[in-house]
Amino acid sequence: MPKKNAFYAQSGGVTAVINASACGVIETARQHSDSIGKVYAGHNGIIGALREDMIDTSHESDATIAALRHTPSGAFGSCRYKLKSLEENRAEYERLIEVFKAHDIGYFFYNGGGDSADTCLKVSQLSEKMGYPIQAIHIPKTVDNDLPFTDNCPGFGSVAKYVAVSTKEASLDVASMCESSTKVFILEVMGRHAGWIAAAGALAADSAGEPPHIILFPEVPFNEKEFLALVDKTVKEKGYCVIVASEGAQYNDGTLIAGSAHTDAFGHKQLGGVAPTLAALIKHELGYKYHWALADYLQRSARHIASATDVEQAYAVGKAAVEYALAGKNSVMVTIERHNGNGYRWELGEAPLDQVANIEKKMPSDFISRDGFGITQLARDYLSPLIAGEDYPPYKNGIPQYAKLAKVVVAKKLNTPFDI
Amino acid sequence: MPKKNAFYAQSGGVTAVINASACGVIETARQHSDSIGKVYAGHNGIIGALREDMIDTSHESDATIAALRHTPSGAFGSCRYKLKSLEENRAEYERLIEVFKAHDIGYFFYNGGGDSADTCLKVSQLSEKMGYPIQAIHIPKTVDNDLPFTDNCPGFGSVAKYVAVSTKEASLDVASMCESSTKVFILEVMGRHAGWIAAAGALAADSAGEPPHIILFPEVPFNEKEFLALVDKTVKEKGYCVIVASEGAQYNDGTLIAGSAHTDAFGHKQLGGVAPTLAALIKHELGYKYHWALADYLQRSARHIASATDVEQAYAVGKAAVEYALAGKNSVMVTIERHNGNGYRWELGEAPLDQVANIEKKMPSDFISRDGFGITQLARDYLSPLIAGEDYPPYKNGIPQYAKLAKVVVAKKLNTPFDI
Repeated sequence: MPKKNAFYAQSGGVTAVINASACGVIETARQHSDSIGKVYAGHNGIIGALREDMIDTSHESDATIAALRHTPSGAFGSCRYKLKSLEENRAEYERLIEVFKAHDIGYFFYNGGGDSADTCLKVSQLSEKMGYPIQAIHIPKTVDNDLPFTDNCPGFGSVAKYVAVSTKEASLDVASMCESSTKVFILEVMGRHAGWIAAAGALAADSAGEPPHIILFPEVPFNEKEFLALVDKTVKEKGYCVIVASEGAQYNDGTLIAGSAHTDAFGHKQLGGVAPTLAALIKHELGYKYHWALADYLQRSARHIASATDVEQAYAVGKAAVEYALAGKNSVMVTIERHNGNGYRWELGEAPLDQVANIEKKMPSDFISRDGFGITQLARDYLSPLIAGEDYPPYKNGIPQYAKLAKVVVAKKLNTPFDI
Repeated sequence: MPKKNAFYAQSGGVTAVINASACGVIETARQHSDSIGKVYAGHNGIIGALREDMIDTSHESDATIAALRHTPSGAFGSCRYKLKSLEENRAEYERLIEVFKAHDIGYFFYNGGGDSADTCLKVSQLSEKMGYPIQAIHIPKTVDNDLPFTDNCPGFGSVAKYVAVSTKEASLDVASMCESSTKVFILEVMGRHAGWIAAAGALAADSAGEPPHIILFPEVPFNEKEFLALVDKTVKEKGYCVIVASEGAQYNDGTLIAGSAHTDAFGHKQLGGVAPTLAALIKHELGYKYHWALADYLQRSARHIASATDVEQAYAVGKAAVEYALAGKNSVMVTIERHNGNGYRWELGEAPLDQVANIEKKMPSDFISRDGFGITQLARDYLSPLIAGEDYPPYKNGIPQYAKLAKVVVAKKLNTPFDI
């Protein structure tokens, strides 16, 4: 097999461990320098390939690449850029293959969620038709945990751990203040369509009755009356109430709770956010003093509290992607498979990309408690191992030391700029 | 000296390390069981003393008390309850002394901020007049870092570390997304009157030009025009802009930025929060896509990322309070004193309570950069050692294991309920 270069890119919202996958790809490629030449990373994801703007990772030292394992977010830059369908914009796909051809790239490793799985598939299909075959392997990544076939998605375990730990700590805070001050605390977490991240808040509780007392999932239509009754009951019984709310929590008709619009200082209608909207509702109806937090990017970039299981899996899927490519595989996503039986054991598998693309895995109904405000033991058994273990980055002067890359750019070979 | 019991209470907003001070008090009292009988903790702070609702800490095992060192928030409950002046409500102070007398309490350890220093002073003064002398020692605690005489306040170092680490991680996130998505990220942090917590965000930067690019302090009047110009310049030069904003940031006339009110779904005027208000302003004037986070209670309860220096100091001031009392001291606050010279060295000192009460220490002007949007090297030298070192709690199944107390209540001796 003639030696070929590899292209690696990060796609969509970044995570605390996507660079651990990059580390797995690059370190494994370096171990197979007989088969793989250089690893070029897309500068800002697939946009980098379209613009022929790539980073030559061979200029990064082994130590720097190793440090990617404990560095959050997208070291090479990611992007929110969904390629159109082949029919709508075939030129984009052809451009990708043209760039890959110019740089002798035979391996395409795409690290992302559902959209990037779809892109990965199309690149593979079109490349074959265009007579320049490329092995395209999809490396799963998404805090949303919504990819099919894989037991879980790298990135999710760490955001889940962050949300569980933060919920536990904030609950202790409100518990100690509730006698004379705050009675209700709301943590708003990510998850537009699936409630996996909100569900992880439940892991803060060691036993029934401990906070969080209420979880709001996008999968369960919001019943305002039942919600308020439960908040009131909880405050009366426990002295306080802790709520974890998914940003995608919605009414029966699909209207987001966050969409109960308010008007900002400029007279613009704004999405209020779930947390402040619920807080205003509780204050208005029940009169309780509240606090709320919106973790936003903090939750998905919190490498300092990453799950060791998640880091290990993120690295493993990157490593496996290279090994699968070298074994001749194409158009597959690396998957994580959970073994049945006692204890948590997992191994890697694969799923064909033409089956992965554009399927969103929501919380199964038997993961959500009957009243819709919590999770079942089944969900707890599923979630708990994913946040297990700590994997602390190194610190200097109290601050985590994250990788700083040289980012040497690959010289362009095409004289055709490409507007995106 | 006849053996006396001790009373310990937590006051005001809790921190990641206030229980480390409790641990210092109780462990040290146990080591002096010849002089100190039992340590009674106020259930929900000073309210517990007024209601004669106290927790007998002698029922907690040594292991449980040791675990307080790594447990955030107020294990015995805190309160927001400011005693009125002696003239306005002498009965409250008299009640305190009545309760202390009934339970043979000769030591009063009050763990809080400026208000509690004032209460501590008055209890000491009045007790003498009432012929039941009590040694009152104030144990400093406040995330706001605004107490005078002490170099810094226990609780601050950990929130500072949380803000610095979170700013660093979120900055990496927006840096990797900015090419095609979010260009501005705003983190809103605590600090109504003083910008110490916001200033700590600057520690995320290893060198000049690194994020955060803009910090907003309550001490610097908000100049909207200069602010917008700097946001725009930063986005154009760096591709993105990270802002850390103190909740107390305000206009020249004292109007809070957060007070640019909007109207919620119920037609109520709401304080918008600094972050969403700035975000709306930036979107309106510059058109940039933004994200923002509101850490709220997460920042002050984040024991998982506590500063080891802060934990050590919080424990030390609790320990010293007991030792000071045994040495016959009264009406003092334990202080932390920084040594001059190379490296960071500190020792404990004391300040008379009649000079501590009701002084708020703001950021000195030479800690704030000339343009008002950052900190000076002097500030960096002051702040940096306070976040040094990590002090991780133990974990089980991916979740920190925090102390769970038995909370055995002390039998009441007074037949007079006290309404507060």
